[in-house]
Amino acid sequence: MIPHVLKRFIVLEGIDGAGKSTQMNLLFRALSQMGLKVFATREPGGTPIGERIRKILLDKACSDMCLRTEALLYAASRAQLVEQVVKPKVNDGYIVLCERYILSSIAYQAYGAGLEVEAVRQMNTFASKGVVPGLTILIDLDPRFELRARGADRIECRGIDYLDRVRQGYLKLASGDPSIRVVDGRMTIDKVHHEILGLVSAFLNAAEEGRR
Amino acid sequence: MIPHVLKRFIVLEGIDGAGKSTQMNLLFRALSQMGLKVFATREPGGTPIGERIRKILLDKACSDMCLRTEALLYAASRAQLVEQVVKPKVNDGYIVLCERYILSSIAYQAYGAGLEVEAVRQMNTFASKGVVPGLTILIDLDPRFELRARGADRIECRGIDYLDRVRQGYLKLASGDPSIRVVDGRMTIDKVHHEILGLVSAFLNAAEEGRR
Repeated sequence: MIPHVLKRFIVLEGIDGAGKSTQMNLLFRALSQMGLKVFATREPGGTPIGERIRKILLDKACSDMCLRTEALLYAASRAQLVEQVVKPKVNDGYIVLCERYILSSIAYQAYGAGLEVEAVRQMNTFASKGVVPGLTILIDLDPRFELRARGADRIECRGIDYLDRVRQGYLKLASGDPSIRVVDGRMTIDKVHHEILGLVSAFLNAAEEGRR
Repeated sequence: MIPHVLKRFIVLEGIDGAGKSTQMNLLFRALSQMGLKVFATREPGGTPIGERIRKILLDKACSDMCLRTEALLYAASRAQLVEQVVKPKVNDGYIVLCERYILSSIAYQAYGAGLEVEAVRQMNTFASKGVVPGLTILIDLDPRFELRARGADRIECRGIDYLDRVRQGYLKLASGDPSIRVVDGRMTIDKVHHEILGLVSAFLNAAEEGRR
């Protein structure tokens, strides 16, 4: 399937605790204040069906979930999100910001948990009908650096070594793809925000130039 | 991935209303009365996580579900079933009877609803880790022949033409695969049962012979 790049679709990625949600909120506010039409969503979830899938994925009662089941559920939630939210909102002129997308599945389920990279990629190309973001911001953080107490949900319970494999996967994926920009998550929240806003503004301006 | 045939894994397939559940019950009873260890399960579902996925799939409130989401949810439920039920039960010496399996996804989501056959096949090979049944019984019925009043769940609502494409898909898949045996669903319940029991007994005997 030929990738279908949506320039006004921007994804924030990173390991748990990297600060994605905080940065999403700041970015959303900053772009809105610039007078842009912005829509923010998240994965898994973002649609009524996706939120029901999210509940299964994050439920501690489902801790016996097989890896393949998990990967397929993330892809299922994504298929619904792309079709019901990402594509229609971009078509309506919105900039769509999304916390996590296909990169998360490859980094977590393949590099982190050991599924085949190509199989995870393939099912997600199917799920998304080839829709990829114009820009992905990866907030990079060494999980060993991240010392804050965290809620103990199923995924984070897999521990630091797991998150380190996820991080290395993210960095490997980023190194081969110019549409993924890495931001150092060790900086203060303000500095990370400033850097992300700079990258997004430059990208949107270039996209706008390209359109003229 | 190389197919991993489980000889003691037997699947019943067919369009909605073909009589799969009735025949599963009769087959289960007959094999049990022969002194065999039999375990019966169904798709989607068959595990706690699978039953939660089943609820989403069959919920009328989810009628806006995209085709790709649906296909991925069926595959997710299947991944859990294979790992938690089919493989362990077969290893424990059970004959596992299952109502619906991969063939259903290919017949319904691909031939019936229009997804790519190869993509559906691929995600299900991933989901099942290549596990395929030793024998599949397809209860064939022309949907136009099936006149009984039916419950109006989401899938059946797609109508007769849809079910006819599903049926044709089933028959096409069966014609190229000697492990799929077709039984005429227009016969009486007793006659269908008799034919299925004959096929299953012959298959199990042959499998037993092969083991000696």
